[in-house]
Amino acid sequence: MLFKDLVEKLGQSVKSSSETPDLEISGVSAVLDSKPNTLTYSESLKFAKQLRETQAAAVILPANEELLAIAKERGLAWIVVANPRYAFAQAIALFYQPYKPAATIHPSAIIDPSAQIGQNVAIGAHVVIEANVTIGNDVVIHPGVVIYPDVIIGDRTVLHANCVIHERAQIGADCVIHAGAVIGSEGFGFVPTREGWLKMEQSGCTVLEDGVEVGCNSSIDRPSVGETRIGRNTKIDNCVQVGHGVKTGEACAFAAQVGIAGGSVLGNRVILAGQVGVGNESRMGDGSVASAKTGVHASVAAGQTVSGYPAVDHRIFLRSSAVYSHLSEMYKAIKQIQKRLGMDTDS
Amino acid sequence: MLFKDLVEKLGQSVKSSSETPDLEISGVSAVLDSKPNTLTYSESLKFAKQLRETQAAAVILPANEELLAIAKERGLAWIVVANPRYAFAQAIALFYQPYKPAATIHPSAIIDPSAQIGQNVAIGAHVVIEANVTIGNDVVIHPGVVIYPDVIIGDRTVLHANCVIHERAQIGADCVIHAGAVIGSEGFGFVPTREGWLKMEQSGCTVLEDGVEVGCNSSIDRPSVGETRIGRNTKIDNCVQVGHGVKTGEACAFAAQVGIAGGSVLGNRVILAGQVGVGNESRMGDGSVASAKTGVHASVAAGQTVSGYPAVDHRIFLRSSAVYSHLSEMYKAIKQIQKRLGMDTDS
Amino acid sequence: MLFKDLVEKLGQSVKSSSETPDLEISGVSAVLDSKPNTLTYSESLKFAKQLRETQAAAVILPANEELLAIAKERGLAWIVVANPRYAFAQAIALFYQPYKPAATIHPSAIIDPSAQIGQNVAIGAHVVIEANVTIGNDVVIHPGVVIYPDVIIGDRTVLHANCVIHERAQIGADCVIHAGAVIGSEGFGFVPTREGWLKMEQSGCTVLEDGVEVGCNSSIDRPSVGETRIGRNTKIDNCVQVGHGVKTGEACAFAAQVGIAGGSVLGNRVILAGQVGVGNESRMGDGSVASAKTGVHASVAAGQTVSGYPAVDHRIFLRSSAVYSHLSEMYKAIKQIQKRLGMDTDS
Repeated sequence: MLFKDLVEKLGQSVKSSSETPDLEISGVSAVLDSKPNTLTYSESLKFAKQLRETQAAAVILPANEELLAIAKERGLAWIVVANPRYAFAQAIALFYQPYKPAATIHPSAIIDPSAQIGQNVAIGAHVVIEANVTIGNDVVIHPGVVIYPDVIIGDRTVLHANCVIHERAQIGADCVIHAGAVIGSEGFGFVPTREGWLKMEQSGCTVLEDGVEVGCNSSIDRPSVGETRIGRNTKIDNCVQVGHGVKTGEACAFAAQVGIAGGSVLGNRVILAGQVGVGNESRMGDGSVASAKTGVHASVAAGQTVSGYPAVDHRIFLRSSAVYSHLSEMYKAIKQIQKRLGMDTDS
Repeated sequence: MLFKDLVEKLGQSVKSSSETPDLEISGVSAVLDSKPNTLTYSESLKFAKQLRETQAAAVILPANEELLAIAKERGLAWIVVANPRYAFAQAIALFYQPYKPAATIHPSAIIDPSAQIGQNVAIGAHVVIEANVTIGNDVVIHPGVVIYPDVIIGDRTVLHANCVIHERAQIGADCVIHAGAVIGSEGFGFVPTREGWLKMEQSGCTVLEDGVEVGCNSSIDRPSVGETRIGRNTKIDNCVQVGHGVKTGEACAFAAQVGIAGGSVLGNRVILAGQVGVGNESRMGDGSVASAKTGVHASVAAGQTVSGYPAVDHRIFLRSSAVYSHLSEMYKAIKQIQKRLGMDTDS
Repeated sequence: MLFKDLVEKLGQSVKSSSETPDLEISGVSAVLDSKPNTLTYSESLKFAKQLRETQAAAVILPANEELLAIAKERGLAWIVVANPRYAFAQAIALFYQPYKPAATIHPSAIIDPSAQIGQNVAIGAHVVIEANVTIGNDVVIHPGVVIYPDVIIGDRTVLHANCVIHERAQIGADCVIHAGAVIGSEGFGFVPTREGWLKMEQSGCTVLEDGVEVGCNSSIDRPSVGETRIGRNTKIDNCVQVGHGVKTGEACAFAAQVGIAGGSVLGNRVILAGQVGVGNESRMGDGSVASAKTGVHASVAAGQTVSGYPAVDHRIFLRSSAVYSHLSEMYKAIKQIQKRLGMDTDS
C-alpha cells in the first residue's frame, strides 16, 4: 500500500510527510522488532531510543516535537495524530485479516435437533451443542466448544476452541469468548453446616451483553437466583474470575487474573488492573480504577483511583508506599526518642 | 407451591405467617432482582433497603425484629429461621432441578475396551476414556472430558465439559469437577542445573476424597512420589492451583484464585479467601482462616485468622492497616521530633 | 533393582553404604509417606523427624553428619551426594516410565490435508489440526487438542489434553504444553474511545523456544505486531498469564498464578515465585528473583531479589515487614511524644 493511500485511510491524521514519493508500505511492525518497509508507531518519548534505531520506513507519532525531530533526522515518513495507538490499530486492520473459518458445519459436530442455528454460521470439528440452544447469524464456533442446553448466542459472536458455555447463559452479539473460558458455570455457593457444606443450587444465569470479550481460561459464574451480568463492551482478559451475581456496567476493562467476588456491583468504565481482587458485595462507581494487585473492599467512589490492600486512595498509597522502606529505621528512631525522653518504650 | 406447604418442607422454620390464605409461591428470587410471587431471603440488616423494595411475596428472615417489622409493614409472608441462607438453599432445591443429561453413552465417545464403566452412567459426546479407567455407578461425564489411563472415578461424581483427569488420579464418590479443571497434572518439579532445569518425573498421584468439588480451570497437581490428597467435602472454587504433595483435611473451602504451593499440609475446615497464597511446606491448623490476598508462610495455628503478606494475626493486621494511610505523616513527624531534640535524623 | 546397582547408576554419588548385602530396592517414595523397600531422600535437617520415622529402606542425603547419624542409627542404606534432589530425580527416572501413548493417529482426529505430520507422531482422539500446520517427529498430541492454522510444533514436543495452540504459534522441540493451556491467544489490546474500546487486531505470534514447559490452564498471548518469545528451557507453572510482546531469556522459572503484563523483558534464569505480578514494560535482569506475591514495576537489576508491592529489595522488605505488626503502637508513640514535646499532633 502506498504511504499516501494509507494516510488517507487513517483519516484522522493531523499531518504527514514522506521524503520518498510513492513510498510503499508492506505492513506494520513493532518499533522494537521493526522490519524494513513497514509502518510502526511511538506513543511517547519513552520510545525515543527505539525510534532512533527502528528499521521501519514510516512512523505514527503524537504531536511531540522531539519525536518528530528524530523521525525527520532518520528520514522516516511520519504521520502525526492525536492518538497514535488508535491510528496504529486502524493501520493493522488495513494489513491484517484475522483468521476466520469458512461458514460451514463440520460433520463431526454434534448438534441437538432442537437447536436453532442462524445463517452463515461456522461450526468447527467436535463442537457439541445441546438442546434448545439458539445460535444467531454469522456466529463462529471453533473446534471443541461445548454449549449446554438453553443457551442463546447473538449474531457475529466468536467462540474460540474448547470454551464451555453453561446452561441458560445468554451471550449477546459481537462478543468474543476466548479458548478455554467458561461462561455461566455454577457459583461457589455453599452453606456451612456441622457436617461440612450444603450446596446451594445455582438456578440463575449469566448474561453477557453485546460486545463483551472474555479471555482465555476465565470464568463468569452464575448465581443461585437472578443473574450475573456483564455490561455492553466490557473487555475481560485471561484467567479472570467473576463471581455469582456480579453486575458490571458498560465498557469496563479487567486485566488478567482479576477476581471479582459474588454480589459486587461495578459502574460503567471501571478499570481493574492485573491481579486486582474485589471483595464480596463491593461497590465501584463509574470510571473508578483499581491499580494492579489492589484489594477492594466496601466501596470506591466514581472516578476514584485506589491502590493497595486494603485499598486506599491512590495518592495516599503512593505516599505511604514511598515510606514503606523506612519502617525499620522509623521504629528504631521512635525507640531512641522514647529513651531520650525517659518514656516507656513498651507503649 | 402453596406457601404453607413450602414452610412445612423447610422443616427447620421457627415461625412463619402469611396474610394471604393459600398464598401461591411460584419460585425463588434474589432480594435485589426479585420477581412477583416468589420467595426471597434477607440475611441481615445490610439488606433492609432491598427488603423495603422487594417485589417478592414472601421472605426468609433471621430472628431480627427490625427486618420482621419491615416484612410485616410490606404485607409480605415471612419465615423466621436460625439460618436464612440454609433455608433458602433448601427452598431453591424445591423449585430448581439442575440439568442432568440422560444416562446414555454417546456414540462419539472413545472408550478404551479395558475401561470398566458402572451402571447408569452418562457419557457425553467426544469424551475420551483411556485404558484401565474405572467409572462408578450414576457418574455423569459431560462432553469433551478426557480421562487418562488408570483413573478411578467414584459413584455419582459429575465431570463437567472439557475437564481433564490425569493418569492414576483417584476421584471419590459425589465429587464435582467443573469445566476446564485439570486433576492429577504433573507437579512443577524441576531441579536447577548448570544447563537449566532437570525435570523430576511426577510418579505420584492425586486423590480427591468423597464430596470434593473443584472449580472451573483449577488444577490439582500430582507429586514426584506419594500423593496429593484433598480431604472429604472440601470445596474448591475457580482458577485455584493446588501444588504437588499438598494434603488438606475435611470440609475446607478455597475461594477463587487461591494458590497452595507444594508440600503444604492443611487441617480440617481451613478457609482460604480469594487470591490467598500458601507457601511451600506451610502448615495450617484445623479451622484456621486466611483472609483475601493473604500470603501464608510457615505455620498458622488451629482456629487462627491471618491476614496480610507476610501473614500476621488478623487483629494485628486490622490495627496496622488502619495506620498505613498515615505512614507519610508519621515519617515526617519523626523527622521533626528528631530535629527538635537535636538528634541525628539519619538514624 | 539392587541398591548397589542403583548407586552405580546415579553416578554422581560421593559415598554410600548398606548393611544388608544385595539389598533390593523396589521403588521410590516420599520421606513423609514412605513405603518399605523403597528409596527416599532428605534434603536438609528440616526433614530429620521424618527420617527418624521413615519406613524406606534407603535414603539419599546431603553431606550432613546429623542426618547421616540418623540413617546409620536406623539401619538405613544411605547415599550421600552433593545434590540430593538431583539424585532423587535420577532415581525416580530409574523406576518410573511416564505414560506415553502409542505413535498412532486416532481415526477420530480431524487433520487438514495441508498439514505436514512428522514421523512417529501420536495423535489422540478428537484432536483437530487446521490448515498448514507442521508437526515434527516423535510429537505426542493428547486427545482434544486444537491447533489453529499455520502453527509449527518441534520434534518430541508433548501437547496434553484439551490445550489450544493459536494461529502462527511456533513451538520448539522438547516442549511440554499441559492440559488446558492456550498458546498464542490474542493479546488484550484495546484502545479507549468515547464509545468504549477499539480492538487492536493481534497480528503477531507467540514463539516458544526449545525445552519450554507451560502449565495447565496458562496462557501466552500474541502481540498486535512482532512476537511474544519464551526463551529456551523456561519452565512455566499452572494458571500463569504471559501478556502480548513479553520476551524472556533462557531457563527462567515462573511459579503458579504469575502474571507478566505486556511488553516486559526478562533476562536469563529469572525466577518468579507464586502469584507474582510484573507490570507493563518492566525490565528484569539476568538471575533476578521476585518472591511470592511481589508486584514488580519498572526495573529489577541482574541478580537482585525483590519482594513486596511495590517491589523493594528483599532485605529491605524483610526489615520493613518485621516492623509492620508494630505500626499501630508506633503511631500512638509518635502522638505521645508530640504531646510531651508540646508539638502539633496533626502534622
